[in-house]
Amino acid sequence: MDPNEIINTLPEKSENGLYGKSFLRSWDMTDSDIKAVASGAGILKALRDENISPKYFESGIAVSMFSKKDMGMGLAFASGCDLLGLTIIDMDRKLGNNAISETATMASYMADALGVCESDFVEKSARYIKRISDSVEESQKNGVIAQKPCVLNLGSDEDSPVQTIADLQYMADRFGGIENLKGKKIAVTWAYSPNGTRSLAVPQGILSLVTRFGMNVVLAAPEGMELMPDAYTRAEKNAELSGGSFSRVSSMEEAFTDAEIVIPINWAPYSFLEKRTELSAANLGTYIDLLEHELRENNKEFIDWEVTEEMMEKTKDGKALLMHDIPADVTDISCIRGEMTAQVYNANLPCLLAEAGMRPYVIAAMILLSKSEDPKAAFKNIAEKGVKRYF
Amino acid sequence: MDPNEIINTLPEKSENGLYGKSFLRSWDMTDSDIKAVASGAGILKALRDENISPKYFESGIAVSMFSKKDMGMGLAFASGCDLLGLTIIDMDRKLGNNAISETATMASYMADALGVCESDFVEKSARYIKRISDSVEESQKNGVIAQKPCVLNLGSDEDSPVQTIADLQYMADRFGGIENLKGKKIAVTWAYSPNGTRSLAVPQGILSLVTRFGMNVVLAAPEGMELMPDAYTRAEKNAELSGGSFSRVSSMEEAFTDAEIVIPINWAPYSFLEKRTELSAANLGTYIDLLEHELRENNKEFIDWEVTEEMMEKTKDGKALLMHDIPADVTDISCIRGEMTAQVYNANLPCLLAEAGMRPYVIAAMILLSKSEDPKAAFKNIAEKGVKRYF
Amino acid sequence: MDPNEIINTLPEKSENGLYGKSFLRSWDMTDSDIKAVASGAGILKALRDENISPKYFESGIAVSMFSKKDMGMGLAFASGCDLLGLTIIDMDRKLGNNAISETATMASYMADALGVCESDFVEKSARYIKRISDSVEESQKNGVIAQKPCVLNLGSDEDSPVQTIADLQYMADRFGGIENLKGKKIAVTWAYSPNGTRSLAVPQGILSLVTRFGMNVVLAAPEGMELMPDAYTRAEKNAELSGGSFSRVSSMEEAFTDAEIVIPINWAPYSFLEKRTELSAANLGTYIDLLEHELRENNKEFIDWEVTEEMMEKTKDGKALLMHDIPADVTDISCIRGEMTAQVYNANLPCLLAEAGMRPYVIAAMILLSKSEDPKAAFKNIAEKGVKRYF
Repeated sequence: MDPNEIINTLPEKSENGLYGKSFLRSWDMTDSDIKAVASGAGILKALRDENISPKYFESGIAVSMFSKKDMGMGLAFASGCDLLGLTIIDMDRKLGNNAISETATMASYMADALGVCESDFVEKSARYIKRISDSVEESQKNGVIAQKPCVLNLGSDEDSPVQTIADLQYMADRFGGIENLKGKKIAVTWAYSPNGTRSLAVPQGILSLVTRFGMNVVLAAPEGMELMPDAYTRAEKNAELSGGSFSRVSSMEEAFTDAEIVIPINWAPYSFLEKRTELSAANLGTYIDLLEHELRENNKEFIDWEVTEEMMEKTKDGKALLMHDIPADVTDISCIRGEMTAQVYNANLPCLLAEAGMRPYVIAAMILLSKSEDPKAAFKNIAEKGVKRYF
Repeated sequence: MDPNEIINTLPEKSENGLYGKSFLRSWDMTDSDIKAVASGAGILKALRDENISPKYFESGIAVSMFSKKDMGMGLAFASGCDLLGLTIIDMDRKLGNNAISETATMASYMADALGVCESDFVEKSARYIKRISDSVEESQKNGVIAQKPCVLNLGSDEDSPVQTIADLQYMADRFGGIENLKGKKIAVTWAYSPNGTRSLAVPQGILSLVTRFGMNVVLAAPEGMELMPDAYTRAEKNAELSGGSFSRVSSMEEAFTDAEIVIPINWAPYSFLEKRTELSAANLGTYIDLLEHELRENNKEFIDWEVTEEMMEKTKDGKALLMHDIPADVTDISCIRGEMTAQVYNANLPCLLAEAGMRPYVIAAMILLSKSEDPKAAFKNIAEKGVKRYF
Repeated sequence: MDPNEIINTLPEKSENGLYGKSFLRSWDMTDSDIKAVASGAGILKALRDENISPKYFESGIAVSMFSKKDMGMGLAFASGCDLLGLTIIDMDRKLGNNAISETATMASYMADALGVCESDFVEKSARYIKRISDSVEESQKNGVIAQKPCVLNLGSDEDSPVQTIADLQYMADRFGGIENLKGKKIAVTWAYSPNGTRSLAVPQGILSLVTRFGMNVVLAAPEGMELMPDAYTRAEKNAELSGGSFSRVSSMEEAFTDAEIVIPINWAPYSFLEKRTELSAANLGTYIDLLEHELRENNKEFIDWEVTEEMMEKTKDGKALLMHDIPADVTDISCIRGEMTAQVYNANLPCLLAEAGMRPYVIAAMILLSKSEDPKAAFKNIAEKGVKRYF
């Protein structure tokens, strides 16, 4: 696709709502903001595919703060930042040290981006990321730091905007534009995993995001596998406003029937995550092990929530687009029984990989839109200069 | 401040005493060397604040060798090196492997800077950093490496020149020039911390450095909290030469009274550090635990050595500049009882953060002054080219 | 040496057999491929020695995947990639997770090079690196990744082509060209180390490579210290074709006598490595400890396999070139008894360090030859532009 065409769809300088902003939750962003990020990612991908280097920074660092290793998002952040010319510095960082403002500012003296991933604690994780963003703003106001880094939520307990906007842009690419997603049935379904303790960020984030663009969203989960109460009401309200729909069913089969897009994904129930957060605050590690053990045992009841070839057959024309925020738990490949069979995984691998490949571009787009007062001009400048990434 | 004005204060090519040098201890540097580093830091900060990229290297690496993680200094080294265009490579490195020259040279094949932080062992730590510097020099002499990296002491058992020169430049900024520090009272005082095992590098380094610039330096510490014997005699001699003064008192209150600058800081007594070094050499880890436990118990006697609002009131006009090589141990924020109260910390946070923000620039200045034969010309070149860091 | 002279020896675009290739084993490469890599390394070194930056990439990342830390090769990969303009991202990676294609592709979205080091398991390690290379190729074919990173074997169970080609180029430098190696006697001998569990990659790789260039290769090892059976037959066949020779003797002394080059190196016998791989697959860690203990005990019988000054005296004119893929186990320096005495080590240190210093250039040459369709033109372009690395 011609990058210049997409550049023309970006908001003018006077209408850029993202300048100086952090990216904490997609539901704090306007539709126009979200489209700008998705378009920005599309432009950056188109440029790089043509061997044009979208280097925006001559020097500068980006600091990653992961509470635990996440290979996929870690590489995505590193790749996206490098694309713009930023060097990654990894900072080991555990939630718990209270002097967040000190830490955040020390990381920000020369940083243009802070990527934070912290998803273990209900409410606390999101609040932690928010406090980092607030501290950085405060330090800029006080003149302590010359420039404010853009703070990116790379995965919290409640949302994962990089993942979900990357998914949106990937779907838009596949179906010829965001506007073409309107009216399409998308199934978001719980799937079995022997691990079983994943956060709610991705399923909640997806529901909240795609209901804004007129899709017909069906959520399927076994009894008890609840999201945060907000997640349902937000999806309902969004669907109503956008002319789409949101419904909940109790079987994967029902959700998959005639769907054009399917997203199987494992998550832990909200009640479990609340309990674990409580036990963690009380330093009761042994009881956390027990709690996780019980969840895994309980999950075995739902071992049939696995995407098989038969299940895929029920989708529209038997060929729905399968999406997943890989790495996935795949039967016979990474575990004995997982979210999908090896057949389904292998048949859809190129798509799954292409979907995940959008993340670095979304990250780079967020940073550029936040750091540039006039990103439309900045993108034009990059495209016109057309510096080759290598010769 | 206009960077060109500061550039004019730099020594001419023929008088640059830092070319090819390592930065091990401030007391091995002349006054002119120290001023050049402080000015260099000021220039780099002024340029970057104006969005000019002081990139000096087209490519090249900087290797960091920390015996244990130090978030603040680690980020400072990474940021400072990135500013000049160098990529950071982290090298896990423990004191003990004897083939130092091999290690140092392997790290140096393409490195323009080696940042070494090793503070656990009395005498041995400083000797270790010195040997790295010597080995690198030897390898260059033998033609094994084409260029010699600048070796920086990022914190040893006896000095921390990056921290102390950053502090000097920060004070100079605040009071309108290094020459204005003359005659000012500065209090360096021991402060309580539940940790209690910090090295002597910063207090010793500060005493040694500020006594050279005519300040009236008062050191306060509880009985038994001794520095290395050299530290006192060096401070005395420096004060005599510079027309300042150096005295020791036994209460924080006496030190704070009428001071214009106060530096509360925890350190472990020299006798403890000697003993720990001895036990460590004998691999007696369990006894080290016991020794540290005893120190912490003993320190509780001095729990009142805490900077409170009342204590700050005693300083000149009640508004001395509070300095600290953060992260600090703050009462009610990072511990139950620490070096200062939360009120004092919060009221002075912007300054503390701004002080720490000078470290990356000092590191970058040291590297540039060591690597460039004519740093004055190099700085002029950077300023004239005025390449924007981002557009 | 004039870089342009070496550039002229590179193959023309139409004859570049390395474009798009991975570097897994030297014996999969033609003689012309190997010479191109060695020459490329020589060009890059000559350019950098003249302060010319051979930056080929404007942005881009290189991902390192080490199953365990290897300081020397890790720094070499980082330095070599930085030389070309690539930023290093370290990826913790253990053999065992089965979804290799997923991992390899996620690392490749924006990577121009993947450096893989995995040497613990007989056959499996090499297969693992091969599968990474295959997966990346597959993902490019499927359009999932826009560009294919060059996959480099930085050390497997069977070969270490970076190390061995670096050694070849170093010898060529010392003796005035690869063609001058013909007819020279080179001794590759087992040497005692208290560690004793090193892989066969380097000795096997050296034998396989130098026999291709007409050298008279003598291998010495104590009884039972067997390489993989293939290693001997490959060396024999190569020697026959190249007009050199390959023989096995049972004492270091015999091998050293009149040799012009000597390579002492410790390795573990093939039978031990096979057994350890088997125990590892069965998760029998305790038995691995026992097996390693037995090997170390057994090795003590061969404690006299140490390079001493007397041993060096036996070489041609008493001054053979001593080579080693440092770090080495040196008596009295890094252990009580090791591969060579401290006297021998110290006397030859500049050479050992210079040898190891060739690795970054070999890595950079491999990447450039694999990524550029016309590397001869690319090298010419770099030399003509002559961008200073620093001014």
